[in-house]
Order: sequence, then structure tokens, then C-alpha cells
Amino acid sequence: MRQAGRYLPEYRALREKHDFLTMVKTPELATEVTIQPIRRFELDAAIVFADILPLLGAMGLEVLFVKGDGPSIPHPIDSPADVGALAAPDPVETLSFTLDTLRMVRRELNGTVPVIGFSGAPFTLASYAIEGGGSKDYKKAKRFMHTEPKAWYQLMDKLAKAVGDYLRAQVEAGAQALQIFDSWAGILSPCDYREYVLPHTRRAINIARNGGGQQVPIIYFGTDTAGILPLIGELGADVIGVDWRIDLSVAWSQVGAVAVQGNLDPQVLLATPAVIERQAARVLDGVRGRTGHIFNLGHGIYKETPPEHAQVLVDFVHRYAGAPSATEEA
Amino acid sequence: MRQAGRYLPEYRALREKHDFLTMVKTPELATEVTIQPIRRFELDAAIVFADILPLLGAMGLEVLFVKGDGPSIPHPIDSPADVGALAAPDPVETLSFTLDTLRMVRRELNGTVPVIGFSGAPFTLASYAIEGGGSKDYKKAKRFMHTEPKAWYQLMDKLAKAVGDYLRAQVEAGAQALQIFDSWAGILSPCDYREYVLPHTRRAINIARNGGGQQVPIIYFGTDTAGILPLIGELGADVIGVDWRIDLSVAWSQVGAVAVQGNLDPQVLLATPAVIERQAARVLDGVRGRTGHIFNLGHGIYKETPPEHAQVLVDFVHRYAGAPSATEEA
Repeated sequence: MRQAGRYLPEYRALREKHDFLTMVKTPELATEVTIQPIRRFELDAAIVFADILPLLGAMGLEVLFVKGDGPSIPHPIDSPADVGALAAPDPVETLSFTLDTLRMVRRELNGTVPVIGFSGAPFTLASYAIEGGGSKDYKKAKRFMHTEPKAWYQLMDKLAKAVGDYLRAQVEAGAQALQIFDSWAGILSPCDYREYVLPHTRRAINIARNGGGQQVPIIYFGTDTAGILPLIGELGADVIGVDWRIDLSVAWSQVGAVAVQGNLDPQVLLATPAVIERQAARVLDGVRGRTGHIFNLGHGIYKETPPEHAQVLVDFVHRYAGAPSATEEA
Repeated sequence: MRQAGRYLPEYRALREKHDFLTMVKTPELATEVTIQPIRRFELDAAIVFADILPLLGAMGLEVLFVKGDGPSIPHPIDSPADVGALAAPDPVETLSFTLDTLRMVRRELNGTVPVIGFSGAPFTLASYAIEGGGSKDYKKAKRFMHTEPKAWYQLMDKLAKAVGDYLRAQVEAGAQALQIFDSWAGILSPCDYREYVLPHTRRAINIARNGGGQQVPIIYFGTDTAGILPLIGELGADVIGVDWRIDLSVAWSQVGAVAVQGNLDPQVLLATPAVIERQAARVLDGVRGRTGHIFNLGHGIYKETPPEHAQVLVDFVHRYAGAPSATEEA
């Protein structure tokens, strides 16, 4: 959840010298920022510093990262022919920078904590590719889905394969868990999610899982998913990440027999230590006694978050949940 | 759901001559645009053309409607003192234009269809008042709520009374149903909604209901509420409106013994007639046989919606749901 990022002064110091894409594409820099939060906080895992959009670049779309504007795709997908033109990328050839980063992070961490690789989910990538950038309501993407279903399915088919292959390559490069970010899945109605998205995300997960070699846990995360959690439970992921908009125990009963990750509102970190501890306690109390809860924020940490508030949270969670590290301190 | 609005050429024609606020504040103009969609479509109710923000103006905040920018509050609430300074407005003195519009609409409609009055909910109004305008995540509002709980409760207390009084005045002016828009309730975690919002919204509903005189149905609507529907069921509203992000029958079982309103994704209206009919059928099929469903969009209609697509929807719903008007046509 933007574990590495602009809320950390040591990240901002590096970012002043290098643009975002250079940091993603230079394994030494990406490794450094991946490890920054691990040095500062007693976290239980690192997540590789990378971006979801280079995969679209590898498929043949031009992706620009313009300073201050966020990413944009100047020639977004607009027709079935555009979908037909997308390549099936070999991640080792096209995304080696992130694979190299994973190898380097593994060496640097030297077994202290595991490292998580990640990718955007097919739907979220399709939305970016059609909208040409971020959007409030992904109107063009939904319109394409509703009015060009054949081209939509072809697009999702290509993306499922590309995402699956990319995730598998990350495991081969050393990722010890995988997270699939479907940040925008929550704009869909349950019937649209079931029809236009679910089978393809499941396929991406299957490809990532069945590549032979090492098996790693797969986490699926989306925001605004309170109404589609039973469908998300059918994806075949090992862990479901949920945002703060639903009671974690309610979410858990809806996704079924998997682990869950979440779900503190990241805005709570902008309040006071007392509020942070009270709200984190609520999350932990809600699932006390159950096995398979991974404490996390319900979405990305805000850049205004004081690092000392993140520290309060990490310390509190370890202490309150009775983790081994807390017992040693006590 | 923006029944009157920019998707209608006859609305745009009037809007070219008058700014938004003039239209809201001139009963003749507001009446005309309230009735425009009723002339064009066979709708079952009219909703008064008004805005949620003049109530904040009546409480003493300056509210500006700048063309192209959306509404803004140049001096938003920033401290407990700002909350203390808010007035308890008499709606008859301060919001007479909307009350006059309701009277005029009743006369014009002459009993053909009922007219719905509305207000913003205390939380959504509080968010606007603190943010000073629209926001992506209502960060300031949540921060105020978390760090200044006493001032927050005072603000919600004042807003609950103002909203309740305003809604009651609308009933006295002729509103035959009331809708409370809590457009931003969905950014809250269930525990925050329960603690900081629910009691005050319930109080607003109680004030609106218990003013003596005529009793009318009260509809509560929010978006992104899939994770807080059981709490919304405790508000004491007669009807709960839900967006498209949850199965309507699932939502219904969560809110309990009330009527429900919804929940077609308004983006479906940007697709084709065939898609519109298929998706509307799904909504209706999901609650077939149950009593108390009011078909509606899951949120406001988009301004790009072709009016003939709205026509397709209205005709289909009447035909497919077997409404009396459809039987007459058949």
C-alpha cells in the first residue's frame, strides 16, 4: 500500500534526483526505495517498488509519465483493431528491470522478511488502456465493455495471459508472494464483474500459479468491493485484501475460506496517535481468534502521513496483536 | 437522480439564459425544469429542482456557484469556533424559493404524479462545509471528525436540526415524499459511520417525520454504501436507495423491512438500447415478486445520456415490470 513512497523523506530525497520512471527502471534505485521502509519500520514483508503500467508498454502502448500529471497513454485503445494489435510480451525481455529489482531485493534483504511482487489486474489495466489515464468513473472503459463485448473479451484474454506470465516471471525472479491490484474493480456492478471480469482475473491467477516451480501465496486487492466480495471469493486467490468500507469480519464471511488483508482507513493515519491506536484496535478486535488475518491499510498511505504516525501504527499492531516481536519487547 | 438536467436539450436551452443559482432561486424557472422530464417521459414521480448547498448558505456560510467550477465555500469550517458561529436557520425565511417551487410544482402537476422534496444529509453537508467544495476523499472532513470530535458532534447536531426543519417545511409546502442525499457516506468505515454520522441522520429523519401534519415517505440515498447497509437500515427511513455496486436483493436483505430504490448503473444508459434493456431486466428480475421496489438509477444520470436512451429505459421498465400503464399499452 505504497509502503515505499512520498510520505518518507528518504524517498523524496531520491525522487528529487530521479524521475519516477527512472526509479522504477533502475534496479539499484528501485531496490533502495523498496528497502527504505523496511529499515525504518518493523514491517513483516517488503513489496517491490514497481509500477503497473510498464506491462501495457510491453504490449505495445505508449505510456508517458509526465511530472505532476500522473501517467497517460496518448493513443488509448479505441477500437477492436487496437486490441488486435496488442502484443503478447515476454516479461523477461520487456520487464527485466522489475525482475532484476526482485533479485537484488532478495539479496539485500537476505531472508529477513519476504518480498512481494505485484501486477495490475486485467480489468484495471484494461481501464487504463482505454481511458488513456486515470478517470473518475472509467466511462469509456465501461462503454467499450458494454458495446464491444467481443473486443473486450479479446483484450481481457490478452491481459490475463500477460499478467499471469508477468507474475510467474516475478516468482522465478524471487518474489515470495504476489499481489494483484484491481484498484478499479469497485466501479462495476456485480453482474458486470461476473460477466466481463471474473473469468479473466481467475485465468491470470491460474497462469501465475501453475507455471511449475515454486508456489507462492497470491493476494487479490481491490477498493470499493463490498458489493462483489462473494464473486471475489471465486477468483482462486489465497488472500483477499479489502478496503475500510466494510467490517473485516463481514468481508471475511463473504469471501469464504481464504486469508484476508486489511483494513484500516489510511486517513486515520492523518489523525492523532490515540485515534490511530483506537481504530487499529477495532480492526484487530473484529477478527481476533481467527487465523489468516494480515493487518494492512485499506488503501495506499497518503503522502501527507507523518512517518511517526506510521511508526505508531506498526508498533501498536505488533504489541496489540501479540506478535512475537511484541512479546520480546514486553 | 438528476431527472432534470443537462442531458435534456430543453434544460440546456433554459440554462443558456440563466445561471444555475438563478434557476434554483426563481420558482418559475425551477418549476419549469422540474416538470420538463415529466412532459417528456412517463415517469412515476417528479423531484423538485433545487440544490443541497443553499441550506449551508442559510446557516451563514458563503456559497459560490462559479460557472464551470462547481460550488465552492471560500471560508470553510476550520475550527470549533466556526461551528459555534453557524446559525439555526428558519427555512421559511431563508429557503422560501424552494418552498415556493414546491407549491408551484404541485399546482402545475395537478395530481398527475407526486413531487419529491429533498435535502443533503448532515454528513454530506458537513463534508462540503469543511472541504469548501467537492473532494476526492474528503480528507479534511475526516480529519476534523477524528481530531475534533466535540466540534464535529456540535456541527452534526446543528445540521441534523437544520435538515430536519428544512424537510418538514418542504412537506408543509406540498412535498409528497422526501429524499435525503448522503452522497459521500460511502467514504466512511462502518465504525465511523456508526459513531459520527448515524445518530444525527436518524435525528434529522425524526424531526422531518414528527412535525405533525401530513406524514410522507422518507428515502435515504447514498453511494458506495454496500459495506454500511445494515447501519443504514437503522436510520428509520422508509426507503433505502442503493447504487449499482451491490446486488439489489442482497442490499434489501441487509437493510431489513423497508422499501428499496435502485439500482441500474447510470453508465448503462450510455450503451445501446439492447444493453439497457438486458441490464434493466436483471435489476427487475432480482427483486421480482417482492413488494416495495422503486426502480431507479444507482446514481445521477450522465449529461451525455441520449434522451432517447432514457426513453428506452422508462418504456422498458413499465412494460417489463407489468405496471398498469404497460398493461394498457399491451
